[in-house]
Amino acid sequence: MKPSIPKGTRDFGPDKMLKRNRIFSTIRTVFEKFGYQPLETPTMENLDVLTGKYGDEGDQLIFKILNSGDYLAKIKENPLEIGFKKLIPQISEKALRYDLTVPFARYVVMNRNELTFPFKRYQIQPVWRADRPQRGRYREFYQCDADVVGTNSLLCESEIVLMIDEVLNNLGINDFTIKINNRKVLTGITEAIGAKGLESVICVAIDKLDKIGEEGVVKELLEKGITETAVNALMPIISLSGDFKEKLLAMKNILATSEEGLKGLEELEEVLSYLDGFGYQYNKLEFDIALARGLSYYTGCIFEVKVNNAQMGSISGGGRYDNLTGVFGLNGVSGVGFSFGVDRIYDVMEELNLFPTDSLASTQVLLVAFDKPTEKYALSVLATLRNNNIKAELYPEQTKMKKQLGYADDKNIPYVVLIGSDEMETGLLTFKNMQSGEQQKLAIEQIVEVVLN
Amino acid sequence: MKPSIPKGTRDFGPDKMLKRNRIFSTIRTVFEKFGYQPLETPTMENLDVLTGKYGDEGDQLIFKILNSGDYLAKIKENPLEIGFKKLIPQISEKALRYDLTVPFARYVVMNRNELTFPFKRYQIQPVWRADRPQRGRYREFYQCDADVVGTNSLLCESEIVLMIDEVLNNLGINDFTIKINNRKVLTGITEAIGAKGLESVICVAIDKLDKIGEEGVVKELLEKGITETAVNALMPIISLSGDFKEKLLAMKNILATSEEGLKGLEELEEVLSYLDGFGYQYNKLEFDIALARGLSYYTGCIFEVKVNNAQMGSISGGGRYDNLTGVFGLNGVSGVGFSFGVDRIYDVMEELNLFPTDSLASTQVLLVAFDKPTEKYALSVLATLRNNNIKAELYPEQTKMKKQLGYADDKNIPYVVLIGSDEMETGLLTFKNMQSGEQQKLAIEQIVEVVLN
Repeated sequence: MKPSIPKGTRDFGPDKMLKRNRIFSTIRTVFEKFGYQPLETPTMENLDVLTGKYGDEGDQLIFKILNSGDYLAKIKENPLEIGFKKLIPQISEKALRYDLTVPFARYVVMNRNELTFPFKRYQIQPVWRADRPQRGRYREFYQCDADVVGTNSLLCESEIVLMIDEVLNNLGINDFTIKINNRKVLTGITEAIGAKGLESVICVAIDKLDKIGEEGVVKELLEKGITETAVNALMPIISLSGDFKEKLLAMKNILATSEEGLKGLEELEEVLSYLDGFGYQYNKLEFDIALARGLSYYTGCIFEVKVNNAQMGSISGGGRYDNLTGVFGLNGVSGVGFSFGVDRIYDVMEELNLFPTDSLASTQVLLVAFDKPTEKYALSVLATLRNNNIKAELYPEQTKMKKQLGYADDKNIPYVVLIGSDEMETGLLTFKNMQSGEQQKLAIEQIVEVVLN
Repeated sequence: MKPSIPKGTRDFGPDKMLKRNRIFSTIRTVFEKFGYQPLETPTMENLDVLTGKYGDEGDQLIFKILNSGDYLAKIKENPLEIGFKKLIPQISEKALRYDLTVPFARYVVMNRNELTFPFKRYQIQPVWRADRPQRGRYREFYQCDADVVGTNSLLCESEIVLMIDEVLNNLGINDFTIKINNRKVLTGITEAIGAKGLESVICVAIDKLDKIGEEGVVKELLEKGITETAVNALMPIISLSGDFKEKLLAMKNILATSEEGLKGLEELEEVLSYLDGFGYQYNKLEFDIALARGLSYYTGCIFEVKVNNAQMGSISGGGRYDNLTGVFGLNGVSGVGFSFGVDRIYDVMEELNLFPTDSLASTQVLLVAFDKPTEKYALSVLATLRNNNIKAELYPEQTKMKKQLGYADDKNIPYVVLIGSDEMETGLLTFKNMQSGEQQKLAIEQIVEVVLN
C-alpha cells in the first residue's frame, strides 16, 4: 500500500517546524511578557459542548468521533431510516474542537470557583474543521488566542495593540496596519442614519468593502432592505478620511445624538490615552469605521491586522465581548481577546523572505571522522561542545567526506570540524565554515568561542 | 447545561502548563543538542494507515472519525445487519493517531526521496487511545519520541543513554537506573537453554519479573509449555548479579555457543566503548538481562528507565529495530528510538518535590496603582520593565490593595511595585518581595536590576 495523509492536513518536516516554532515562540514570549498564562484543553470535547455554538453550517463542519465499542448496540431502528443527522448523537458523543473560544468558555465555567480574575490566558493549539480544503485553507490548523476575562478595563485593549506590534516587529514584519473600530460606533451609525436595529445586515455588507468595493456594498445594502436615504447617509461615513484624531472629531459630530455611539468613541479615546501613557507611537493604528468583523458576539472594540506589502488577508484580529459563557449558563463574564493566524503569518514571512536561514539551523557543528581512532577522538570533542551547550553531532558512520559534508549542507549546519590523524596529533582541528567555505586550524577552546559568538 | 470534558481527558490550567512546559522544553533542548530535528504529523491519519498496526485489541482502541456530510449515503443494507465492526470503514475513513511511530514510518515512506539519511527526528505530540480510563491512564496523552533511521551505528544507542541522563539531571531527577539489554542476547539465551524460537513466550514472562516475582515467572513459563530443564537453566541467568562488566563476562560463557547471543553482547560492549569515549560515568547504566520490552518489533539494544526513589513504572524506554517501514512496503529502514513518558515524569517530580516554585512564575512583576494619575504613571514604569524583557503587568482596575496583592499571590508573582502619589513625586517606587514580605523604595533602574538578577 502507498500511504497518504487526509486531504486538508499537513506534515511539518524539520524545515517548516523550525520556521513555525520561531513564530510560535515569538508569540508565546510576548503573551507571557504581558502576563498571559498558558492553557491547554483536550482535543476532544463532548459533542453537546460544541453543538449549536457555530450556527447550523458550523455544526456540520465539526468532526465527530465515533463511539468506541459497539456503537450500534443501543440502536433499535434501522439507521438508514433514522437518517444521518439524527443518528449522529446516537453514535457519537465526542468531537474535535472547532476553535479555542468555546473550550475556553467551557473551562472558565467549570473552574470559575478556582480561577483568579481577571484571568489572562493564552492558548496555542490546533483546531479542526471539515471545510472543503483549498489553497490556504486546511482541515487542521493552529490558533493562537489570548483573552482576558473578568475586567472591563480598556487597558487590555491598549495592550492588545502593543502585543500585536511587538510580535510583528520581532518577526521582522514592519509594514502593517492595526485597524480598530468599536461595535458601539457601528450601532451609533445605524441610529444616526435611521437604520436602528439593522446592525447585523450593515456589518455583513460593509465587512466586504475591501472585496466588493463601495458599489457592491451599496447594492447589497439596498437588496437587504436598507433604505436609500440610510445608504446615502452611511457611505460617506464609512469612507471618512483623515488621521485617527481627525476621524474621531468628525464622528463625534455625526454620532452627536447617539449615546451608544458616543460611548464607543469615548472607549476608543481611552485606548489611545493608554497608548499615550505607554509612550507608544500609534502611527500604525488606524480607526477603520468600516471594520465590522463577522461575529455578532463582539460588543466593544474590534481589531484586525493587515500586512501592507503582502498579498494576504488579515493576520490577526479580535475584540471585546460582554458574555463569553452565557451559553453555559454563566452570565456576566466579559472580556477581550485576539488571535494570530500562524499559517498566514508563515506565508507572509515566506513571501517577504523574513526567515533568516542561519538562525534556523538545528545543529551548529557537525564532526567528521574518518576511521575508528579519529572517531574515538571525536567523541571527546563532541562532549566538550555539548558541555558548552553547543548543538553538535558526529556523523555516525565513517564514510566518504563528500557524503558527510552533504549531510551538513542538507541540514543547514553552519560549521564542520574535520578530524584526521594530523588533527589528533596536534590538537588543532580543521574548522570549516560551510557558508564561506573558509577553513582554519583551531583548538577546541577556540572553536567553542567562535561558535558561541 | 453544566459542561464537562470527556472522561480520560484533561484541561491543563496555568500551574500545570508551566510545569509541563518545563519538562517539554528540557526534553526538546536535549534532543536538539544531539542533532534531532522536530517533526509534526497530522492528528488525523487515514484509517487504513493505522489499522492492523497495533493488533486486534489496538484496532479497537483507535478513535475513529465519522465521515462528514451524509455518511450513510452510500450504504444500502441495514447497518444493524452489517454490524458495527464491518460498518466502521464504510462510515469512517480517518482516525486519531494512536502513537507517534506509525505516523513517523508513514512520513519516512512518503518523503523517502527528499529526506537526508541518517534522519534524526523528534516528535512531541498527543496521542489518543480508547482505553478504559484509570489513575495514571488517559485517553489523550503526550508522547515524546526521538528516532534516528538509516544507520546501524551504535553511536546512536550510546547517545540515547547520554540524552536520558541529561534530561533527567536537568529536571533534578538524580536517583535513576537506565536498564539496557539486547534482543540478540535474549535470543542467545533461548538457544543456550534449549528453547530456541520461543523468545516471545519467554520475553512476555520475564518482562513481568518485577511484578510477579521469580515464582510467578516460573509458573507462567511452565504453563506456556517451556520445559522444566529450560526454565531451570533460565532462572539463574536472568538473576545474574554483578556490575556491567562482570555480567558481560558471565554471559559470554553462557552464550559461548550462540552466534546471535555473542553478537548481542558485542553490541553492548560497543555501546560501553562509545560511552567511555564520551567520558561518561556509566554507574547508572545496568545490564538487565531480564529486560525484554513487549514489542516484538525490537531487534537490538533495548532500554528502560526507572526512578529508584519514586513509586512509578518506567519513565522512558526504547530500542533498535530492523524494519520500521516494511508494513508500508519499504524494507530495510533500520533505526533506534526512545521516548519519555511526560505524565509519569510529571508525577515523579511532584512526588519528589522537584518543581522549583519561583521559576514557575509566569509574571515577574505586578504593578499596583490606586487612581487614574498613578495608573498613568504606572504605564511608563510598565513600558520600561517590558523593554527590559521583564514579564510585567498592571492590575487593570484601581481596586483595593488587598485584592491586587491577592492577585499577585494567586499567580505566584514574586515582586509587586506599589505606585502612590509619594512614589510619583519622588520617583522612588515601593518594591515588595512577596516571598519575604520585605519592602524597599527603589528607582525604576534599580528594580530592573534586582528583577533581572
